[in-house]
Amino acid sequence: MKLPDPLRLVGRVFPILQWSKTYDLRTAIGDLIAGITVALTLIPQSIAYASLAGFEPQYGLYASLVGGFVYGVMGTCPQINIGPTALLSLLTFTYTNGTNPDFAVLLCIIAGIVQLFAGVAQLGFLVDFVSLPVVSGFTSAAAITIASSQIKGLLGLRFSAETFLSTWKGLFEHIGETRMQDTLLSLACCIVLMGMKALKEIRFKEVRDEKNHRSTRFLQRFLWFAGVSRNAVVVVLAAVLAFMVHEDKGDPLILTGKITPGLPTPEVPTFHTVVGNTTYTAGDMFSHLGSGLLVVPLVGIISNVAIAKAFARGKTLDATQEIIALGACNLVSAFFRSFPVNGSFTRSAVSEASGVRTPAAGFYTGVIVLLTLALLTPYFYFIPRAALAAVIVCAVLHMVDTDILKKLWHTNRLDLIPLLGTFACCLALSIEVGLICGVGIDMLLLLYYNSRPPLDIKYVDDGILPPHYAINLVGSFNFAGAERVRSKVADLKNPNNKVLQAATLETLTIIPEGGTPNGNHGNAVIIGDNVANGNNLGVNVVRSSNVLVMHCDALYRLDYTFLQSVKMLVKEWSQGGRVLWCNASPKVKEQLVNILQEPIFCDSEQLRILLTGAVIEDQQAGNVNDTPL
Amino acid sequence: MKLPDPLRLVGRVFPILQWSKTYDLRTAIGDLIAGITVALTLIPQSIAYASLAGFEPQYGLYASLVGGFVYGVMGTCPQINIGPTALLSLLTFTYTNGTNPDFAVLLCIIAGIVQLFAGVAQLGFLVDFVSLPVVSGFTSAAAITIASSQIKGLLGLRFSAETFLSTWKGLFEHIGETRMQDTLLSLACCIVLMGMKALKEIRFKEVRDEKNHRSTRFLQRFLWFAGVSRNAVVVVLAAVLAFMVHEDKGDPLILTGKITPGLPTPEVPTFHTVVGNTTYTAGDMFSHLGSGLLVVPLVGIISNVAIAKAFARGKTLDATQEIIALGACNLVSAFFRSFPVNGSFTRSAVSEASGVRTPAAGFYTGVIVLLTLALLTPYFYFIPRAALAAVIVCAVLHMVDTDILKKLWHTNRLDLIPLLGTFACCLALSIEVGLICGVGIDMLLLLYYNSRPPLDIKYVDDGILPPHYAINLVGSFNFAGAERVRSKVADLKNPNNKVLQAATLETLTIIPEGGTPNGNHGNAVIIGDNVANGNNLGVNVVRSSNVLVMHCDALYRLDYTFLQSVKMLVKEWSQGGRVLWCNASPKVKEQLVNILQEPIFCDSEQLRILLTGAVIEDQQAGNVNDTPL
Repeated sequence: MKLPDPLRLVGRVFPILQWSKTYDLRTAIGDLIAGITVALTLIPQSIAYASLAGFEPQYGLYASLVGGFVYGVMGTCPQINIGPTALLSLLTFTYTNGTNPDFAVLLCIIAGIVQLFAGVAQLGFLVDFVSLPVVSGFTSAAAITIASSQIKGLLGLRFSAETFLSTWKGLFEHIGETRMQDTLLSLACCIVLMGMKALKEIRFKEVRDEKNHRSTRFLQRFLWFAGVSRNAVVVVLAAVLAFMVHEDKGDPLILTGKITPGLPTPEVPTFHTVVGNTTYTAGDMFSHLGSGLLVVPLVGIISNVAIAKAFARGKTLDATQEIIALGACNLVSAFFRSFPVNGSFTRSAVSEASGVRTPAAGFYTGVIVLLTLALLTPYFYFIPRAALAAVIVCAVLHMVDTDILKKLWHTNRLDLIPLLGTFACCLALSIEVGLICGVGIDMLLLLYYNSRPPLDIKYVDDGILPPHYAINLVGSFNFAGAERVRSKVADLKNPNNKVLQAATLETLTIIPEGGTPNGNHGNAVIIGDNVANGNNLGVNVVRSSNVLVMHCDALYRLDYTFLQSVKMLVKEWSQGGRVLWCNASPKVKEQLVNILQEPIFCDSEQLRILLTGAVIEDQQAGNVNDTPL
Repeated sequence: MKLPDPLRLVGRVFPILQWSKTYDLRTAIGDLIAGITVALTLIPQSIAYASLAGFEPQYGLYASLVGGFVYGVMGTCPQINIGPTALLSLLTFTYTNGTNPDFAVLLCIIAGIVQLFAGVAQLGFLVDFVSLPVVSGFTSAAAITIASSQIKGLLGLRFSAETFLSTWKGLFEHIGETRMQDTLLSLACCIVLMGMKALKEIRFKEVRDEKNHRSTRFLQRFLWFAGVSRNAVVVVLAAVLAFMVHEDKGDPLILTGKITPGLPTPEVPTFHTVVGNTTYTAGDMFSHLGSGLLVVPLVGIISNVAIAKAFARGKTLDATQEIIALGACNLVSAFFRSFPVNGSFTRSAVSEASGVRTPAAGFYTGVIVLLTLALLTPYFYFIPRAALAAVIVCAVLHMVDTDILKKLWHTNRLDLIPLLGTFACCLALSIEVGLICGVGIDMLLLLYYNSRPPLDIKYVDDGILPPHYAINLVGSFNFAGAERVRSKVADLKNPNNKVLQAATLETLTIIPEGGTPNGNHGNAVIIGDNVANGNNLGVNVVRSSNVLVMHCDALYRLDYTFLQSVKMLVKEWSQGGRVLWCNASPKVKEQLVNILQEPIFCDSEQLRILLTGAVIEDQQAGNVNDTPL
């Protein structure tokens, strides 16, 4: 391996150096429109997500500030917008609940460092080890947990709860304290949000007339834009309403209230903080964040890579660079008092639909967030909590994936286990523990798959070679399947051949004699075939043989445990029979020589000779009493 | 499935009903000799292991009392002797350290119940999921931990320590307090033990003379017997010595001291107990034992099945019955105040060498233990601790398996990771945590294996069919390999074919064209072959094709994540090319239909027609500009 060219490396880490070369006005206008549209979604979302994460609204904007700039320089996927997301806000809340923003900022910088490390060390492939059913179960459960946590906001209740179960327990306990005004407002907000979302879907009939066509197109565009900016519209309208009904004593609505105005002061994240009367050292903070220090960056990587893949549309994706860019966003954001940030699927879709061309769109979004922070924060006072809750609930509901249930039922019922298991664990315990449980269930499934390796046992009696058992060893065998393979092969010597009788197609695959894909079955008696057809006649026609031929053409890995199993298998078989190893690769040969006493190797030609010899010897041993040939 | 015949079931659970039918005097004499010989090993070992477990010596004998009887009735392997073992004694110590024997008895009954449950529920297969390298690393680390814990006994030191590291820390701190007499005695004991063990190995020349032959045989037998009874001899001699040098004040040697004499009173294990001033309820006791409630029975099952397999010598082993018998031994033993028991490899080997015939040998061993408990306990007072420590150290040292290192180096270097990982974790943390870490490492290895599924990509240009890429999908594919397979196939369209250039034989297996084991390679240009031979010429001769044929003859399982990967792959490939699915099974077809938009299925004959058509179409699309045929 040669070292990468430094210039190419810089170009790879900062893709802006490449796409900026061809950056022209047309591209810039596309990006500008997309940037502004995304900002209209981002700003109300970020204020809402800040409250989801348990912080004052300005923290959401702090988290939206830097991501666009950093990702603009380092990102590869034009659509992605980095900022607060529902999932990461919920996770942040879980890990920092009852503390202060310093913990969230620490979580953010550590997440950034972990992601950078994962990117540089090319550990992105680890993400592939979390199966889609687990990711789906996790996301759905997170959406339901988030929606549940906002019901109290919708109803104007006030209590603190962390997990799904405690939220619902709290809801039942406090349901009597429901506030009418807040409930009505949130109901109205939800209806407006869903209605405006539906606007996007309206399609006008195509009009041939040029002038009408133009106005239709404009109306279509307007409706689409209204749909995209629905969060901003609802939040502004609700704030105006709240301002109008405002009374100095006892506001009729629960409002966001006084917040710190203006831009965040850039500062190095602090590693010791005071919450109430308790002083936390760096060690205390780390131990409080605990598994979050790994779960938060991991979840960030999983969802970011998933979004990037969705928008890559078949083009090759540089997942490593995506992870590095995400890490850089978190790292830099932490210096502006941000909690952990990530790409958002909703905003990426908005960006895509607005005609984004390059990651430069992030710059324009960032500038608007900057202006909002500098000029608009005083007005946040009047944003009703109910409106924010409505924004969150309407944003996360589409994250619940029910389609996959139907798909899995039709294609892979076994995969319902990790999906439902993860989902149940996430709701019953907490979403981060549920994710870990899901990975555990994946591992158990993997064990199950590996305990049933493809094993092609057949009894060959094709008139060309003397009758013998043949096993086609394909691929890789390891400890999980060792005992099963041994016992299946041992059972060939069992006169009742129970395993073969009971075998299903799944455990006893059939490869046609010769294994050619052209389907030349020869005259082989294929045991599995008879079993698969559900008749037991095959078992009656199976004749026994003392010769077992292991075809190793496509065998490329055996682990030690499997080798020990093979050793026992050969020992069992050697009592009155023999095992031949046909076409083994040098590596497999070396392994077998080290484990077995004098294994018999052969190629296809030698096999023919050996087989004929073996059968003659066997017949003589039976018939002619020890007379040598 | 029909229900098992009740009579056969009883016969299976109580094998004594079968072998007792043919039990004659000759068999009885064999068993009697074996039973007595085993008792001579068992009694001194059990006294020593009791102190290893942290209890008074009589508890070792309590643990030896019942196992022989119960296993005699329910066991299938004549050689196995159930009683205290070094490994389980150490585990018992780990989990019950600082408490009282009530905890050990509770651990014993729970272990029995868990094992019985595992046996009845046929969960024995779970044992196969712990790979041999992990078992080996665990056993070696346990032996070293045990030996280390006895060094203080050898040197006459007194301090308490639990793990390997704390033991050595304690040794360095207390090394100055070494007692000369105890050290000398233990040194002498070790020398005698090793010497007597070596006696067994002495072989006399064969003598033709009948009379001399007899005396030689007698001498040989005597030496062997001396070797086998070495533990008993050493303990008795040391006790006699201690009695002779005994002084009323300040014994020169550390002795076992006063113990409760006589047989244990059979009683139901207690679920609440008092240690010092603390009262423990059942819940407290359970939470104190914690993971031990699963680790102890699991380790018991693993080692017992391993021993049974070793002595089964190729005969089919009823592992389920072995687990049930072991569970019953623990369950019943708990009523006689025993700590967890298990089969011992040493004693089984002694039993085998003494000519054991049936599990009835356990009855004779049990009677001798009974007599010892009834008559000899008062004399245990004088057994020096140093002698017991010497017995343990000499017994466990053979458990350290160094041969496997050499074997793994030559056959499976990858398997050194779980071995050394487990070993290191066992020593650095504690042996039970180390075992769990080992299983975790196994899972990571499994992920690694599965992330590299056997993928046979070839470029077929044999003159019969038009040139195309062919992939032979064999066996089962799941989430772990999904992304890798997708990217490898996507890279076929990459003009530089980097993946193929960089591919090693391991990741890109070669199945000869046609896949026949008879080695008919046809005229295929096999990409892998060129790579395997280390020359890059192959990459130059690779021509591209827009047709990808997936041979599914031997494909039998795809999980949902892999299917999604296939969906993306087909999407990528469909831009100017097509994917054909040849000879897919109905199940795979159903899966593909649910995921892909109109997949093209075919059998071998249709493939030929389709391929020719596709190539013609492609050529026309390129050359004749959209003119339909």
